[in-house]
Amino acid sequence: EQQHQQQELWPSVRASFTAMNTVNPIRDLVDTMDIKGNPDKRMIALSIGDPTVFGNLPKSPASTNAVITALKSGKCDGYPHSAGYPASRKALAEYFSTDGLKYDLEDVVIASGCSGALDLAIEVFNRVGGNMLIPEPGFSLYKTLGIAKGLDMRAYQLLPDKSWEIDLADMEAKIDENTLAIIVNNPSNPCGSVYSEEHIKALIEVAARHKVPIIADEVYANMTFGRKFVPLASLAHNVPVLSCGGLAKRFLVPGWRVGWVLIHDPVNAFTENVRPGLLKLTQHILGANSLMQGAIPSMLKDTKPEFFSSVLSHLKENAELVCSMLEQAPGLTPIMPAGAMYLMVKLEPSMYKDIKDDRDFTQKLITEQSVFCLPASVFGSPNFFRIVTTIPKAQMMTAMERIIEFAKAHADQ
Amino acid sequence: EQQHQQQELWPSVRASFTAMNTVNPIRDLVDTMDIKGNPDKRMIALSIGDPTVFGNLPKSPASTNAVITALKSGKCDGYPHSAGYPASRKALAEYFSTDGLKYDLEDVVIASGCSGALDLAIEVFNRVGGNMLIPEPGFSLYKTLGIAKGLDMRAYQLLPDKSWEIDLADMEAKIDENTLAIIVNNPSNPCGSVYSEEHIKALIEVAARHKVPIIADEVYANMTFGRKFVPLASLAHNVPVLSCGGLAKRFLVPGWRVGWVLIHDPVNAFTENVRPGLLKLTQHILGANSLMQGAIPSMLKDTKPEFFSSVLSHLKENAELVCSMLEQAPGLTPIMPAGAMYLMVKLEPSMYKDIKDDRDFTQKLITEQSVFCLPASVFGSPNFFRIVTTIPKAQMMTAMERIIEFAKAHADQ
Ligand SMILES: Cc1ncc(COP(=O)(O)O)c(C=O)c1O
Ligand SMILES: Cc1ncc(COP(=O)(O)O)c(C=O)c1O
Repeated sequence: EQQHQQQELWPSVRASFTAMNTVNPIRDLVDTMDIKGNPDKRMIALSIGDPTVFGNLPKSPASTNAVITALKSGKCDGYPHSAGYPASRKALAEYFSTDGLKYDLEDVVIASGCSGALDLAIEVFNRVGGNMLIPEPGFSLYKTLGIAKGLDMRAYQLLPDKSWEIDLADMEAKIDENTLAIIVNNPSNPCGSVYSEEHIKALIEVAARHKVPIIADEVYANMTFGRKFVPLASLAHNVPVLSCGGLAKRFLVPGWRVGWVLIHDPVNAFTENVRPGLLKLTQHILGANSLMQGAIPSMLKDTKPEFFSSVLSHLKENAELVCSMLEQAPGLTPIMPAGAMYLMVKLEPSMYKDIKDDRDFTQKLITEQSVFCLPASVFGSPNFFRIVTTIPKAQMMTAMERIIEFAKAHADQ
Repeated sequence: EQQHQQQELWPSVRASFTAMNTVNPIRDLVDTMDIKGNPDKRMIALSIGDPTVFGNLPKSPASTNAVITALKSGKCDGYPHSAGYPASRKALAEYFSTDGLKYDLEDVVIASGCSGALDLAIEVFNRVGGNMLIPEPGFSLYKTLGIAKGLDMRAYQLLPDKSWEIDLADMEAKIDENTLAIIVNNPSNPCGSVYSEEHIKALIEVAARHKVPIIADEVYANMTFGRKFVPLASLAHNVPVLSCGGLAKRFLVPGWRVGWVLIHDPVNAFTENVRPGLLKLTQHILGANSLMQGAIPSMLKDTKPEFFSSVLSHLKENAELVCSMLEQAPGLTPIMPAGAMYLMVKLEPSMYKDIKDDRDFTQKLITEQSVFCLPASVFGSPNFFRIVTTIPKAQMMTAMERIIEFAKAHADQ
């Protein structure tokens, strides 16, 4: 009885600004959708940006071997340096150095996934009243992290009709004296776009003009099939860049939580505060798992080129399949990607008799056809939806057949 | 020339409050010390809280096998749920449930090390103008994390003459209406102390009286030899508790970065905000490595009791060796620990002719005898130093001989 009374007296404990202001548009959407599907058709999920879910894209044997070696060595169980094992940082520095771009061990900070790298990069610039620019459509984590830190995250538009290039006039118009960084994602989630050298130079010019550093999310670095990947930093001669990457996508091991920040600072703008600041931030929780860190040098060296090329062929063929098949679907215009594991499909609701928008389309598609695509309003672009291209080809074909059937059934003839 | 001019025009980019306010007392100290040592004597480091550094305490074969199984399964490479694999959370819930304390899958949040768990627990309560209570002497990360978040971290005293029990009057005096949580560390780093059931009940009473939640850092749970470990939550019938733990110490794999928060909320104070807040916070960077998470159930089940008991014997024997040998050292009073991997040695500077304080003692000990102990001023307790007890016994004996020689040489007779 006494205990009972005491219990009732406890007020609900409040949670922090950061906790309460953690928005997750994808989760929020999925929670409001009815994802039961048509009981007569097996669900095909084209919604999840995890290349391991279908089992058709296993990690490379070199990765497995590298982890076993680290595990059995007994030398990778202790605390690494908070920025990562020197040998692993050195291996990454060499791997990402090119003719025009030299990274050193000290330029590499290993983090807990590319998410952890982005968290470091966004946090190190954080300031009360500050804002950052983010792509729209874009990966929702930028907003999640920025808003939780109290930042104003301002969207600049990507242009679907120009292969998702940045609307540079729009980007420039969003910059003001409180702009702390411009976040650029190339190759892009959700678009699958890959920027040309010219476009990268042009966007760097905007940053240079306003003296705003760039955070380059390059977690899909080298995952291109339409066009060569150009590291943003390799063209940034007068702008400092934090390039964020990770093993997740290219090595098909997102659960391993290995990411990094590469520091490119040709103008010495990061020497005094940002470099030491990044190192200090790594001391909060320390970075990636030590075995995975120990595996990095051998993963980078020993993974066969065929491993990467066969994944890329798969992604390319699936994208081509989608683009050619959806020609038959009224109201839909797929935009052929050049990299990453996604493509966007444009939707014209006016072509249908009973489809309001992307949410309505994707919800009805689930209910009638058991095909789950993410409505791109979660990425900031209504009237698109995103298709993930990692799925086995046969399932992709079935999914496209169903989408065609669905589009025809709803078309306003 | 033009590029050169542009480069000079970039101002130094500022770093955030959190980055600039990340204090790391241990690193700051080590940076100011001359750790070269006596060239005629091999350095013996009794300073590092990483049980793997000497190679004498390898991880258990069960841990190795569990990771290999997860690695080869191909089922643990994708993204886990942001709070961890359900099977791993369930295994932890069962492992930490006792007669009086029941945890459910939903009560377990897996994080990136116990550091990550502490970061979640401290962050979820964070509020502008808030304060938290921390033990002194205590693990420095509480301060590092709290100050970086803008919190006022207030030290309460531990009593060396009462086996490092909390000075409860002091603790209670430090509580005010802005106190967001009391952090309790048991077993303790740096003290090696283990609290009795009575003492834990008494400290819970203080928290209950003021309706302040407890963050229990129990990363050394079950690592006791002097006295049985009592989980704080098992006695907290009227206080909500976040218990933080991890694999690091007991399983001898600190680099694996696996930790957890166990939510104990008998008064329903966490239901509305803190539970959902913790889940939201896990979505920022996601938690621990998926292979290690996959290994958790089998590590908990298959690790032989002899593995744990032989580590504990080693820690106990080393602590006894230190205590018995240092009897011969003037000015030093070791305090026998009952758990964890440390003990504190009290120092009386007045007994020496030329030793000012703990920093002076440990610096001269390095220079003359090549023995490195951490001065406990980094933990908030000047005139103590900490000895790590994981080192091989022969080296411990040599180190103690050197400390005795050193103390005798400096004694004021
Ligand atoms: C553009 C982009 N950046 C970063 C990430 C996060 O990568 P990681 O899993 O390494 O945290 C993702 C994951 O989907 C992504 O699509
Ligand atoms: C008391 C205490 N809590 C937490 C930690 C951090 O543990 P982890 O390595 O799992 O982050 C340590 C590490 O030394 C510690 O001594």
